Amino acid sequence: MEARPEPLVLLVLSGDREKALAAANLALAARASGRPVFLFFTFWGLNLVKRKGARSRGPLLARLLAFLNRDHAGRQRLGRFHLAGLGGWALGRLASRKGVPSFAESLRLAHDLGARVTACSTTLELMGLTREDLVAEVDEVAGAAALLEAARGGQIVSL
Amino acid sequence: MEARPEPLVLLVLSGDREKALAAANLALAARASGRPVFLFFTFWGLNLVKRKGARSRGPLLARLLAFLNRDHAGRQRLGRFHLAGLGGWALGRLASRKGVPSFAESLRLAHDLGARVTACSTTLELMGLTREDLVAEVDEVAGAAALLEAARGGQIVSL
Amino acid sequence: MEARPEPLVLLVLSGDREKALAAANLALAARASGRPVFLFFTFWGLNLVKRKGARSRGPLLARLLAFLNRDHAGRQRLGRFHLAGLGGWALGRLASRKGVPSFAESLRLAHDLGARVTACSTTLELMGLTREDLVAEVDEVAGAAALLEAARGGQIVSL
Repeated sequence: MEARPEPLVLLVLSGDREKALAAANLALAARASGRPVFLFFTFWGLNLVKRKGARSRGPLLARLLAFLNRDHAGRQRLGRFHLAGLGGWALGRLASRKGVPSFAESLRLAHDLGARVTACSTTLELMGLTREDLVAEVDEVAGAAALLEAARGGQIVSL
Repeated sequence: MEARPEPLVLLVLSGDREKALAAANLALAARASGRPVFLFFTFWGLNLVKRKGARSRGPLLARLLAFLNRDHAGRQRLGRFHLAGLGGWALGRLASRKGVPSFAESLRLAHDLGARVTACSTTLELMGLTREDLVAEVDEVAGAAALLEAARGGQIVSL
Repeated sequence: MEARPEPLVLLVLSGDREKALAAANLALAARASGRPVFLFFTFWGLNLVKRKGARSRGPLLARLLAFLNRDHAGRQRLGRFHLAGLGGWALGRLASRKGVPSFAESLRLAHDLGARVTACSTTLELMGLTREDLVAEVDEVAGAAALLEAARGGQIVSL
């Protein structure tokens, strides 16, 4: 029984770049050791699977939130030392020199390696977005029950 | 053995509204599938089970912290886009139009459905608060050992 | 099988003092009940196992990040109510009066009690730091695969 692979669920609530990179790294490491991986993007984390230029079609308030919240799969702010983008730029330059892949690249790779990518249905509705506003790697739109079911016998890491 | 329900422990450290709502949603989804649920409120998360108007009776420093930290079960700030309350107001309006319940409502429901609600004893003491300052849904005041015991065979999600 | 101790993995991404204290408390409580404990420090969390005065030897950008990011094992900022250090000072004074140990003290104790302390290899390299810049409690420098292996059959708590 010890040998049965334990699923790893990554619950991505934050849109911060640090946490996005941590989620991607854990997903890749878990797939490399044969564990089932389930990535769930919710609240600000939904930005991480949003296409660039996605536009809210909700009421005015949803569009206001969508405007504030305009990061996307290819761009995320740092949770610390944002410094009007300077901190993120420095970290990004350093990471790419060291050959660390971006979040978008890691997400694509994790998905190719079999990680399941889910977007939170409630967040999507609140933001006035639809499946078409999300990147191709998203396998499904679902709620908390799907996340809990996927985690049976494994671990949940919130990021 | 697969059928034995795995407990879900929600370790709520942050007082941010996003994380409060996520905790409440996970608690409800887990109870709906028959899993034991244990909610542990600590650090700024303790605000989420504090009564409106609770007053610190600790030393001056504790009262200073309590003043800074004056959110309560019925009011939480957003971790992002607080905008002097505007972001939270917009999200709250949107959520209520969509029929998404508030944190206080979800906590009450989760508790009615059998979720166990615990407040961190150390935080309570540091803030100069007592059991009487907490909402009725709090079942007990306890420490980290109780949290770990409740998590046996299940998952812990920190929020 | 119920009696086999479940490992507890603490994934410390944030350098905030609240989360550092929560990680230390959980580590101590888990060791007290005989559970294997694995502390993994990454991203801003790496600060928590950095020596005071550690200096980046990386390129200019790494040194810029290291300068911004100059907290260390003996000093951490609060995630909320930092108030130019005032919030942290008040909390620290209160905690020491109540006999709550500092993070550095708790880390030393947890390590003495058998908790395994790991620093993230990728973060170390990005910051231009080496093993010599870390406190004595660090047992190894490793990556995400080591964290996942340590978590088998147990829980992961991200902080």
